[in-house]
Amino acid sequence: MTKQELVAQIRAKQSFLCVGLDTDLDKIPSHLLKEEDPIFAFNKAIIDATSPYCVAYKPNIAFYECLGPKGWESLKKTIDYIPKNCFIIADAKRGDIGNTSAQYAKTFFEYLNCDAVTVAPYMGEDSVTPFQEYANKWVILLALTSNKGALDFQFMTDVHGEELYKKVLKKSAKWGDSSNLMYVVGATRAEGIGEVRKLVPDHFFLVPGVGAQGGSLEDVANYGWNADCGLLVNASRSVIYASNGTDFAEKAGEEAKALQEQMHQILVAKAF
Amino acid sequence: MTKQELVAQIRAKQSFLCVGLDTDLDKIPSHLLKEEDPIFAFNKAIIDATSPYCVAYKPNIAFYECLGPKGWESLKKTIDYIPKNCFIIADAKRGDIGNTSAQYAKTFFEYLNCDAVTVAPYMGEDSVTPFQEYANKWVILLALTSNKGALDFQFMTDVHGEELYKKVLKKSAKWGDSSNLMYVVGATRAEGIGEVRKLVPDHFFLVPGVGAQGGSLEDVANYGWNADCGLLVNASRSVIYASNGTDFAEKAGEEAKALQEQMHQILVAKAF
Repeated sequence: MTKQELVAQIRAKQSFLCVGLDTDLDKIPSHLLKEEDPIFAFNKAIIDATSPYCVAYKPNIAFYECLGPKGWESLKKTIDYIPKNCFIIADAKRGDIGNTSAQYAKTFFEYLNCDAVTVAPYMGEDSVTPFQEYANKWVILLALTSNKGALDFQFMTDVHGEELYKKVLKKSAKWGDSSNLMYVVGATRAEGIGEVRKLVPDHFFLVPGVGAQGGSLEDVANYGWNADCGLLVNASRSVIYASNGTDFAEKAGEEAKALQEQMHQILVAKAF
Repeated sequence: MTKQELVAQIRAKQSFLCVGLDTDLDKIPSHLLKEEDPIFAFNKAIIDATSPYCVAYKPNIAFYECLGPKGWESLKKTIDYIPKNCFIIADAKRGDIGNTSAQYAKTFFEYLNCDAVTVAPYMGEDSVTPFQEYANKWVILLALTSNKGALDFQFMTDVHGEELYKKVLKKSAKWGDSSNLMYVVGATRAEGIGEVRKLVPDHFFLVPGVGAQGGSLEDVANYGWNADCGLLVNASRSVIYASNGTDFAEKAGEEAKALQEQMHQILVAKAF
């Protein structure tokens, strides 16, 4: 999907919501466990209920991988089922030497046909650029993450007081442009979002941490907004596990709709 | 596998060789492509030919993942086939927020029953420690990698002149100890290996970059040695693709044996 197509979807749906598919056999409603493929059955119902309200889905690969080949089958079926007007992010946090990153790119862009994959920056340029060799596919690079451990290294400063996450932004912005590179910026670090926005004015951000992790949607929009909206705000557990009864899909849809309505207000206020 | 057991294997086999299983359908001998599972057929023959000369195997997960569920089946069969006296490393470069890293740990330590998994440090402590909650299982954390992109961020210095990779070593050394934590230190940065050894005297290093990437075994041993040997030196392509004819396994065995003989000389010189 191109940037123009993504922006058009945000306008059309009046939403910049991404629904995270962290689908866990231990958390889905027990009545689904008798289905032939409980993970896909759950995802299918969640997608049906939430797709009017979101512009992106983000399967968290760890939750599929741990089930072995069956998990990869559920993942593939899920991705194939997602409507074509939705942006699909493989949340995989991959990154390795060039020839290996090229194989990971094959997995997510050829085998699974996702639009984007999350990538970790520690190994530098040649670990990232193999993912950028596909037309209309995206790298979403970790910049400022939402978790406590973000404080361990991402805020390390050099002699000029510049933090590691800012170096990651400045260097990586030269490896691609805003048509094939986004950044992960956690909602739990709202002021950090503003710092990131100053350095990369044109890029989209994937913002986790609203919902179960406690970040504020208003803060994210205040600090992260750009002329294209520039935001994909992810909610995973707060949407998909809104209920664990037979009404799980209905409740997930309601939760996604509530977030979409908040986003609509923001988009109206921004005259978008 | 415990540290004591690993050291015992190094003594017994007079080798600290790890064979990397970067098994690629485009590179294996063409006569194997008519097998039901060419990837496993290749790995089985490579393991039979090399296991007398190495103490560890390192399947590179990217090369299996890109084949979808079939790739995961080949990977599982390969891991189950590796002799029990060999240390098994899932080269996966994973790392995410705590609940997600816990799922990755399930994949590599429960489903696949590997001994170790490589992990990227960018997201900090809570992305790493879920992997350390398994008895006799190991995290192998990226410290100083062998690729060109290592120069992008790993050598960033703070106001005291301390590099990022040293911060990673110092902080992470407190998250575990030398019985459940190793470090990736590239053979292409021999003097860096010496710097790492000063900071973490007791830990094992997984050293990629000998062979196709050009690092020197002598330098690695000079700079990285400790009282337990403390080294697992990996060779992937130079061993497994030593020939692409019907003699591929024999030639891989010869290549592994040549490396083992060099290692034996080093171990003798160190009176190990």
